[in-house]
Amino acid sequence: MRTVIHLLSRDETEQQTALAISRNLLNDETDSIDDVAVVVQAGGIDAVVTGADTEDRVRSLLNDGVPFKACSNTLESNDLDESDLVDGVETVPEGAVEVTRLQTEGYAYIRP
Amino acid sequence: MRTVIHLLSRDETEQQTALAISRNLLNDETDSIDDVAVVVQAGGIDAVVTGADTEDRVRSLLNDGVPFKACSNTLESNDLDESDLVDGVETVPEGAVEVTRLQTEGYAYIRP
Amino acid sequence: MRTVIHLLSRDETEQQTALAISRNLLNDETDSIDDVAVVVQAGGIDAVVTGADTEDRVRSLLNDGVPFKACSNTLESNDLDESDLVDGVETVPEGAVEVTRLQTEGYAYIRP
Repeated sequence: MRTVIHLLSRDETEQQTALAISRNLLNDETDSIDDVAVVVQAGGIDAVVTGADTEDRVRSLLNDGVPFKACSNTLESNDLDESDLVDGVETVPEGAVEVTRLQTEGYAYIRP
Repeated sequence: MRTVIHLLSRDETEQQTALAISRNLLNDETDSIDDVAVVVQAGGIDAVVTGADTEDRVRSLLNDGVPFKACSNTLESNDLDESDLVDGVETVPEGAVEVTRLQTEGYAYIRP
Repeated sequence: MRTVIHLLSRDETEQQTALAISRNLLNDETDSIDDVAVVVQAGGIDAVVTGADTEDRVRSLLNDGVPFKACSNTLESNDLDESDLVDGVETVPEGAVEVTRLQTEGYAYIRP
């Protein structure tokens, strides 16, 4: 099974929940989760900017093979570019299109 | 691909994000999104009432072929009726049933 | 059709919306909803603890056949155990895995 986490809230608790859930999916003892991906847009972008309180958790998930896909439209409207993001975070043209694509490919959707 | 946006938050930032994402799905350069629908219920109803700050954005999406489906149960519990809504917003008996139906038909789900 | 409600917000309005939507799905006049399940984790756990303001609504849904599945990881990190929950609430090892499993089995997803 595969899961996409949609990280688009500016709420810090919801951001922390998104990262905790990603970690719990990876650690699942039943080993039933094959892939976890995180799509980041809107207020969620704060969680993957270099220097964020969440940086260590993001790095740790990236190291363990969880892709983070940040929305380029969000970067543009926040005057950010890829160099502002934690190393290893990818960009996609539009987060919502990516989330749609992943669900169409069979990923379950979770919005923390 | 098709996407349903679930607009059910009373949070204005989340409402704005829902409308921005709907627009971005329409404008997708890869042209991979065939349909976008917005289901409105609970606190989200404020965003589609005549006179709301979001009225122009809702009108613009309606003009571009995005259906807005407002939950009749929500209207009733807020003492609203269809005449209070931005022209062109439809109603459905229950928003959650509509969201379920659309997902069953293959729509991806996004909850901003 | 089947629907899973993901109750993971600490926001009381969102918790109330989750319970109201579960009830509305049960009451659907078109009788098109065969199953409703509620997966509870993160801040949502407050809504299913004995003594919560929402206890009566949770009990009523349980009585009408809606399973509530609380995340054991959430219980552990909140120093709670199953005996703290409203009678009849089940536990699952990890809520996000359960939500993924249900979607994979064809449940639509709603995050109030």
